[in-house]
Amino acid sequence: MDISNILGKQLIGYQELADGTEYFHSVDPATGNESPIRFYKATSTEVNMAATLAESAFTSYRKKSGGDKSTFLLKIADELAENKALLVSVCGAETALPQARLEGEVGRTINQFKLFAELIAEGSWIDARIDTAIPDRSPVPKPDLRSMLIALGPVAVFGASNFPFAFSVAGGDTVSALASGCPVIFKAHPAHPKTSELVGKAILNAAAACGLPAGVFSMIHGDGPSIGTALVTHPAIKAVGFTGSYKAGKSIMDAAFRRPHPIPVYAEMGSSNPVFVLPRALKQHHSAIASGYIQSLTMGAGQFCTNPGLLIYQDDGAQDNEVFLGTLKEGISQATTHALLTESIETAYSRGVSERSSNPALAILASNLASEKHPIPTLFSADHTVFSKDPSLEEELFGPSGIVVAIPSKNELLQFAQKLSGHLTATVHATEEDLVEYKELFDVLEQKVGRVLINGFPTGVEVSHAMVHGGPYPATSDSRSTSVGTAAIFRFTRPVCFQSYAASLLPEELKNENPLGIWRIVNGIRTNK
Amino acid sequence: MDISNILGKQLIGYQELADGTEYFHSVDPATGNESPIRFYKATSTEVNMAATLAESAFTSYRKKSGGDKSTFLLKIADELAENKALLVSVCGAETALPQARLEGEVGRTINQFKLFAELIAEGSWIDARIDTAIPDRSPVPKPDLRSMLIALGPVAVFGASNFPFAFSVAGGDTVSALASGCPVIFKAHPAHPKTSELVGKAILNAAAACGLPAGVFSMIHGDGPSIGTALVTHPAIKAVGFTGSYKAGKSIMDAAFRRPHPIPVYAEMGSSNPVFVLPRALKQHHSAIASGYIQSLTMGAGQFCTNPGLLIYQDDGAQDNEVFLGTLKEGISQATTHALLTESIETAYSRGVSERSSNPALAILASNLASEKHPIPTLFSADHTVFSKDPSLEEELFGPSGIVVAIPSKNELLQFAQKLSGHLTATVHATEEDLVEYKELFDVLEQKVGRVLINGFPTGVEVSHAMVHGGPYPATSDSRSTSVGTAAIFRFTRPVCFQSYAASLLPEELKNENPLGIWRIVNGIRTNK
Repeated sequence: MDISNILGKQLIGYQELADGTEYFHSVDPATGNESPIRFYKATSTEVNMAATLAESAFTSYRKKSGGDKSTFLLKIADELAENKALLVSVCGAETALPQARLEGEVGRTINQFKLFAELIAEGSWIDARIDTAIPDRSPVPKPDLRSMLIALGPVAVFGASNFPFAFSVAGGDTVSALASGCPVIFKAHPAHPKTSELVGKAILNAAAACGLPAGVFSMIHGDGPSIGTALVTHPAIKAVGFTGSYKAGKSIMDAAFRRPHPIPVYAEMGSSNPVFVLPRALKQHHSAIASGYIQSLTMGAGQFCTNPGLLIYQDDGAQDNEVFLGTLKEGISQATTHALLTESIETAYSRGVSERSSNPALAILASNLASEKHPIPTLFSADHTVFSKDPSLEEELFGPSGIVVAIPSKNELLQFAQKLSGHLTATVHATEEDLVEYKELFDVLEQKVGRVLINGFPTGVEVSHAMVHGGPYPATSDSRSTSVGTAAIFRFTRPVCFQSYAASLLPEELKNENPLGIWRIVNGIRTNK
Repeated sequence: MDISNILGKQLIGYQELADGTEYFHSVDPATGNESPIRFYKATSTEVNMAATLAESAFTSYRKKSGGDKSTFLLKIADELAENKALLVSVCGAETALPQARLEGEVGRTINQFKLFAELIAEGSWIDARIDTAIPDRSPVPKPDLRSMLIALGPVAVFGASNFPFAFSVAGGDTVSALASGCPVIFKAHPAHPKTSELVGKAILNAAAACGLPAGVFSMIHGDGPSIGTALVTHPAIKAVGFTGSYKAGKSIMDAAFRRPHPIPVYAEMGSSNPVFVLPRALKQHHSAIASGYIQSLTMGAGQFCTNPGLLIYQDDGAQDNEVFLGTLKEGISQATTHALLTESIETAYSRGVSERSSNPALAILASNLASEKHPIPTLFSADHTVFSKDPSLEEELFGPSGIVVAIPSKNELLQFAQKLSGHLTATVHATEEDLVEYKELFDVLEQKVGRVLINGFPTGVEVSHAMVHGGPYPATSDSRSTSVGTAAIFRFTRPVCFQSYAASLLPEELKNENPLGIWRIVNGIRTNK
């Protein structure tokens, strides 16, 4: 692959198509310069082609063995690795994200494919269950029952702007859907269309090398809600993955629910990731916590879904608190950022900061006005009582801005936690003694989020088996799932039971002799025999 | 307990309340006689009390150990067993269901509690995952991550009329929600209010004996959509279980989706459970298949969610087909039934049969007009082409009526299967040679239903580990779940991840030393060490 490959068309099956007349350009957010290539927005005919092709590919792709699908995922990882330098360079010019960060992100994306490849090659994830027959049971015989998870069908995925690799074309939604046996139609984010096209072609190269049917992966361009609605409401689509704003996510949820046959939507829609600093931790570690917080808040210009937008501490009037605030102020006034990903994010961030500035319930604690053209990192302070009057203060402001909340007592801190809405993460800074005294806080927080951290910062989402990147509404549309980590595969599956099946028709996973050697539940007992 | 216990009030926490003025009576469907006891419909104040109490009980109940919750479930099983004779007698008088059937159903309900008790006492269901830290990993340290499933919160359950024990107050939704750690508010079905009250009190006796907080279980009465909407839209309710009609289920789905924070709904809404008879099986076993089909269709007066309302066979003009149809006709004309559960079911069934009778696309194959006051078992026949013109023919008609569909060729049979909507089950009667020739049919059917059976009948839903009682929309609202069997517990849970947690705060399930000895996934490897 090289940059001359980029034609700005839809990738539908193995074809490149551009039937429409509307188009947009890739923009360098650092300079505002447009690249000359026209990226054509998909037409409804093209959406229909992609969906129909995905439906057809599903018939054979879902039946591929875990080994075959694993080979496909590893081949995608290879394609990404081979083209890493090109990908990073093209992506840098349309996202303003630093090279080191993008290199790390491509590495993470490659590792994600490898992890899912390992998961499905091993195969036990499929939750095979066997209850053997008892033909002479009284009063009625017990039949032979065997169940496992099967793939739902073609999945529509809407990528995020902020992780052009890890949450985009070859991101967690795509890899988990492909791993489960579902074809993917990816709606590329207009903030990085060149990168999207290259990554889309890397996936298609891998699909072709593995001899997979056209339609196992397609990618379309577009912006605005109409193309998304056309995709989500297409009868062939059986599930949706989405990462973005609450407004766009809710509109996809609505479209999916209005279908004659509603389908599941996994939308990650925003979170302000509260960080609690307990009294002894503040006293002992105020400097490190304040610096760590500022770093986490301003990293990537604050464009992380796990960005810690709320910092809560118990203000007992001690002198350490003043020092803590001082370090925060100093940190934010010196924080360096880079250009935001898109003009619309920039506009929304500026408007958000301006609205917060004129909100009488908030005071500006500090900001880095010297950051000039880049987004101005800004820290506000607020009394905890204002949150119950104005729940919008708890909403995410995408960018390097946070609100520092002082709470006078433990009881009020617990009440504040109890009133929190759903978030992706909650963090607590605590000493051993704090942990004992504030045990109840953790019971509350685990009901509010998908991940609770102690003495860390929420940015940095490990791709592993135990990760949960999810959380109660409105952080996500479906708290029962994670979009990162191997458990993300379950989102695109459902169980099916085979009763009194002939051995010849049983999938390998459910045959008596366990040819795959996977872990199964046989008459209630876990075994890999 | 005895019958004088029945007061017709709401059971809210450990209190019996009746604030409202509207009431209804228990009716014997065999005679139409009303029992004098007034069953008061819950007021919105009572709904709110029950929900608030459930929210409060959740705080401590969710933290009970698997062992403690298991003891509670076993105590409920004991209470049901002790009162079995009373329950069966009271239930028989308000459902017209035969004694032997009700005794079997109480037994099944008791066994269901025992199975879930075993599941949660063992504990591995919780999907504990541990990824250990790598502090010196480059470029960033890997944190310690541990995840498991936690309970969602108070669950509203709407019981079915057709299984007054197994899908009602102490049914699969209640037991799986309680097992997961969720309090239950049960909306009793007005078709068997006396039975509901006795069973509700059995659960409360068990809760009291186990010292559980008030609100872990409540039961309210009502009919019509308003009480259901009040319950489903209460902010304290976090999930819904429902078994009933499509119309009522869809209205609950709508109410749950319209909430400021939507919640999951598990609604089982109807299915006509297609049964396919392949050519060689028909030739060799037509008599047994026809008799078995009639028995499955008319069992319990056809009031099963897995009632086989569609019988499809390939009509090659052979003489065996005529004999097959003859046996079906003879079977239906002699089928005995009993009164339907309620007047409204009776009205809907009569209307349905009458509409089918006047539908020019259907012919009456046979009916048992001699059944007089009881529902008239009726078999229709239809050409397969009429289904694509009138999709309503695929919908469930609750009662002992089916449609027999003759299809001229294998290809058309496959096409018919491909066009099917979502159902709970599909059944295929086949010889070994049929299985080889019609392999593709099974690939199609597993995408249409939750359970595929070979050479059996779908009525009879085993409570076990591998059972899937669910299926694609509109059979259920959420094909990713089962409402019967141990996997039903997952419906009321979500994963939460603990990052860099102090050992002292970790739940037992996630401690290093694995004190519960459960199966876990540690760095990707399954182990019970």
